[in-house]
Amino acid sequence: MTEQAGSAASATTSTAGTDVVALLRAALGGRVDTSPAALDDARADESGHASAGRPLAVVRAASVADVQATLRIATETRTPVVTRGAGTGLAGGANAGPGEIALSVRDMDRIVEVRPDDLLAVVEPGILNAHLNAALAAAGVWWAPDPASREISTVGGNIATGAGGLLCAKYGVVRDAVLALDVVLADGRLLQLGHRSVKGVTGLDLTALMIGSEGTLGVIVGATLKLRRLVPGTVQTLAATFSDVRAAAAASAAVTASGIQPAIMELMDATSLAAAHRLLSLPVPTPGAAQLTIQTDGPAAHTEAEAIAAVLAGAGGTVVLAADTAEGDHLLAVRRAMHPAMQTLGTTLIEDVSVPRSELAAMFDEIARIEHDYGMVIPTVAHAGDGNLHPNFVFTGPEVPPQVWDAADELFRAALRLGGTLTGEHGIGVLKRRWLADELGEDQWRLQRDIARVFDPLGILNPGKVFAA
Amino acid sequence: MTEQAGSAASATTSTAGTDVVALLRAALGGRVDTSPAALDDARADESGHASAGRPLAVVRAASVADVQATLRIATETRTPVVTRGAGTGLAGGANAGPGEIALSVRDMDRIVEVRPDDLLAVVEPGILNAHLNAALAAAGVWWAPDPASREISTVGGNIATGAGGLLCAKYGVVRDAVLALDVVLADGRLLQLGHRSVKGVTGLDLTALMIGSEGTLGVIVGATLKLRRLVPGTVQTLAATFSDVRAAAAASAAVTASGIQPAIMELMDATSLAAAHRLLSLPVPTPGAAQLTIQTDGPAAHTEAEAIAAVLAGAGGTVVLAADTAEGDHLLAVRRAMHPAMQTLGTTLIEDVSVPRSELAAMFDEIARIEHDYGMVIPTVAHAGDGNLHPNFVFTGPEVPPQVWDAADELFRAALRLGGTLTGEHGIGVLKRRWLADELGEDQWRLQRDIARVFDPLGILNPGKVFAA
Repeated sequence: MTEQAGSAASATTSTAGTDVVALLRAALGGRVDTSPAALDDARADESGHASAGRPLAVVRAASVADVQATLRIATETRTPVVTRGAGTGLAGGANAGPGEIALSVRDMDRIVEVRPDDLLAVVEPGILNAHLNAALAAAGVWWAPDPASREISTVGGNIATGAGGLLCAKYGVVRDAVLALDVVLADGRLLQLGHRSVKGVTGLDLTALMIGSEGTLGVIVGATLKLRRLVPGTVQTLAATFSDVRAAAAASAAVTASGIQPAIMELMDATSLAAAHRLLSLPVPTPGAAQLTIQTDGPAAHTEAEAIAAVLAGAGGTVVLAADTAEGDHLLAVRRAMHPAMQTLGTTLIEDVSVPRSELAAMFDEIARIEHDYGMVIPTVAHAGDGNLHPNFVFTGPEVPPQVWDAADELFRAALRLGGTLTGEHGIGVLKRRWLADELGEDQWRLQRDIARVFDPLGILNPGKVFAA
Repeated sequence: MTEQAGSAASATTSTAGTDVVALLRAALGGRVDTSPAALDDARADESGHASAGRPLAVVRAASVADVQATLRIATETRTPVVTRGAGTGLAGGANAGPGEIALSVRDMDRIVEVRPDDLLAVVEPGILNAHLNAALAAAGVWWAPDPASREISTVGGNIATGAGGLLCAKYGVVRDAVLALDVVLADGRLLQLGHRSVKGVTGLDLTALMIGSEGTLGVIVGATLKLRRLVPGTVQTLAATFSDVRAAAAASAAVTASGIQPAIMELMDATSLAAAHRLLSLPVPTPGAAQLTIQTDGPAAHTEAEAIAAVLAGAGGTVVLAADTAEGDHLLAVRRAMHPAMQTLGTTLIEDVSVPRSELAAMFDEIARIEHDYGMVIPTVAHAGDGNLHPNFVFTGPEVPPQVWDAADELFRAALRLGGTLTGEHGIGVLKRRWLADELGEDQWRLQRDIARVFDPLGILNPGKVFAA
């Protein structure tokens, strides 16, 4: 699908695109890529959404100085800049279009410093999540944010979107795992936000403000990450099948209420479970059956897994406790097959509402109601441990049909009614900007936009995203 | 000591103070207190610093509507507003002076909701930290921020200053423990920031921005707190004495490097240890001796305490492992006696620098150098587990002598050189505003001040604090 209104149209546009490219080339030489393949690639992320056309150029920054040079030219020429990492976003936030510079920081992928004694690492933004943790493991430490895309997504993109993942209930969200950020402002100035110490309350917490700001406040060019020590012991995996999704959701709430904190607690509804089984050539599940897949970790992993098994059985589940790591991987493979399984069904709009954990069953009731009212099937998986649901709207063709947006609108309103949010971890981007004020209220929406203008008075940082009405 | 330049002088001042009080009385009746005792009380916090004179009035808000009414009048009349909780701050941030309204939210102290299943509580800002945790314990949960003042300080003040405490290395800082805030803006509008769900990345994270904003952005009138389950097991306490403070600091770094995470790890240097012993009528410690006091908690508390004891002994410490809770309380009582012990020595300026944990010994070297260069004794305690030091400048008389400020200036610069910060948990207030730009840099200082102006265009919220040059 493509954006109907090009994002550049709503921003201050460049007066002469060719001059901008010439200026970029003069300053950055071979780091400026205007090949059709590169320009096309920069139009889209993994949301299925693409900008209305090709951007002016892709700048492949290799250093802070490259980013500063790009932004100085952008400011001089009033040219919008869309910062990109690996392009794995799910809200269209990094899609670059006509009249815009796509600024890739993917090549800035060094680990600058690892300090196990201070439990911190300093990295460049383009490093992949999985590469970082592979390197940290040698020092006995890890960085907890764990998006499902970790093999292909960057740390900088993770911070810029506030992407969470499977481990948030036990190990925290991105906000809890970043100590400091180096940020280049729209005019090219470099700021150092935050500190290397555990504590620090000097002035306003701009580090936290940058997390999840989706490229609207500045370009993250360095990050000081708060690490954890590797968790000792062997991970234990169990899966439980329930007669229906409501029973599975209630069982996950019972696990949370029991006081045992799993590392991972994933829920698949009947449609997604059946699709994953079909993809993996597993036996067809009982019609209507939903599944919880749970992992425990740490020294007490085994006793916690057994206690959780008892809670699940008491809640009506048929429980399988993996005998070893191989069987555990096998159980989790069903959950991991969800996205490829959805792709076999058609084009997918992956939604991302989040509700208080106690409202998970109620949110599934709302999804069932919307399925009924709209005559749709909405396969849904949930990070049940933290109340984050990913309902999948499946359709044919490149454009989201209007009735899918209508159903998504109902979904968002239901999540807000239950005390939840439009987006737990994917962000607003272009896909949810028209609902932003519904959650924030008009006063807060305007306040947030005015704060963004303090950072970016010319409105050249990712215009058309987040705050565009 | 009193402020030389009244904070109101630097702000838009009220045209007619008596009219403001009349307007407040008309709107808020008996909630407006102009008794001399109340006005004098509102001039100071626990920093030893007081404003240049009495404020116009103290408004004792009992509801969100009271706060809104006060701020509407403040905006209409351009009158500065200083929000106060229990007045236990250590940076002068809540001191109200001539021409200002002191807005107390201390009477807004209800617990609105406790949800153990969602691990959250909704509270009003005036509740005392200790009262909150006493009430939460009945539901098997607690709120982790744990300032030393918890018996007398409010949750709202804790959030407004980002006050940390003893447990931050293991259980996180305030930023990690707040999900949502209700905030009244300078013009009286009420905003709801954040969400009740574990995850949520809708728009900019204004909840995090409010934490530690010291009354400059808005008035916190409600908070949704992220709770933890009560930690099972019995706390274990141990103390270790070292020949000098550098050895004690190195031992604390060795504990952190060992990978065992204590709940509490406190360090007392020789002067503070001797003063505490004197106050408690304990035997005089070996000259020069410094002490670490450590607590472990959770199911593995005992084995962790034994492992830590081995690390401390290996680092040259003489270790005492408490046999029971009573002996543990006795060991920790020495640390708790620090502040009263300092008060026996004279007037105290309690500083609050924070450095990366690996730099703790280096920071003590800097303190020794400053003691030598200035011919001073600077008794220092540290939350050694997180690198937060409280050097105490002791002097006679009500005013901080210029040479103490000179020595403090050296202290701040040393902390910044070591990758640390001016203030780990007390805030900037009035006492550190002239060093704020040294840490932030001029560009970030100006950006932060401009963000504050978006919230408060008239500059009536706590003027003269934080961003006043």
